[in-house]
Amino acid sequence: MNIYFAASIRGGRDDQKIYADIIQLLGTFGTVLTEHFGNTGITSVSGTGKDVGAIYNQDMAWVTQADVIVAEVTQPSLGVGYEIGRAEDMGKPILCLYRENPERSLSAMISGNKALIVKTYETLADVQILLQEFFKNQTRT
Amino acid sequence: MNIYFAASIRGGRDDQKIYADIIQLLGTFGTVLTEHFGNTGITSVSGTGKDVGAIYNQDMAWVTQADVIVAEVTQPSLGVGYEIGRAEDMGKPILCLYRENPERSLSAMISGNKALIVKTYETLADVQILLQEFFKNQTRT
Repeated sequence: MNIYFAASIRGGRDDQKIYADIIQLLGTFGTVLTEHFGNTGITSVSGTGKDVGAIYNQDMAWVTQADVIVAEVTQPSLGVGYEIGRAEDMGKPILCLYRENPERSLSAMISGNKALIVKTYETLADVQILLQEFFKNQTRT
Repeated sequence: MNIYFAASIRGGRDDQKIYADIIQLLGTFGTVLTEHFGNTGITSVSGTGKDVGAIYNQDMAWVTQADVIVAEVTQPSLGVGYEIGRAEDMGKPILCLYRENPERSLSAMISGNKALIVKTYETLADVQILLQEFFKNQTRT
């Protein structure tokens, strides 16, 4: 089971610790292709430090290779939105994980999109339950 | 010429005035399907106030109907990223307009993506020149 975990990089790294925790949970369900998205060394200015063309090509290759997409969508992010759009057109199963935020609502292109599974969570224990439910319904490859 | 102007709604409305100015410029090149995205009444909490499923369906219908996409990508936004991804898969010409920001770089999924035309600007006069150049290369319908 290859898992593409989508998370905000240049959109902002406020949730880096949560990404790292979710990646650790995801590792019990399969191979997380984007394990480094939880690293503290990645910033919203430098990103992963690689050439943007190389990043684009690598990330899209991983999206293509992935059996499922799990996206953390609390922090607005162009890259996460883009990857969800492309992965949806590839017919990939997509789980979006969201923490309620009084300052802004989740994008209607995510919350109003019936092709996605969108779930809200508060704690990591909630995420664990949501992941179990999601992966139970996926075909292992 | 039907133009889909993509801009941050629930990602944050800091650039609302700039969106309104760009929409006004776009109106000289064709019909802006999302003219209301520049309105002051739209907030990051309520969005346009409509049901999210109805918004999703309407916005995707407009993306499908559009001859071109012009996206303001300075403010990170899941919806804008999603629309760019879907529009790219539909083969639409896509112009991304970006103002440099010292706090964060543009997503590599945008800046590293050769399928998009990505241009930086500072002033509305810059935008006007970029739009003239972009629309000069589009087939009028």
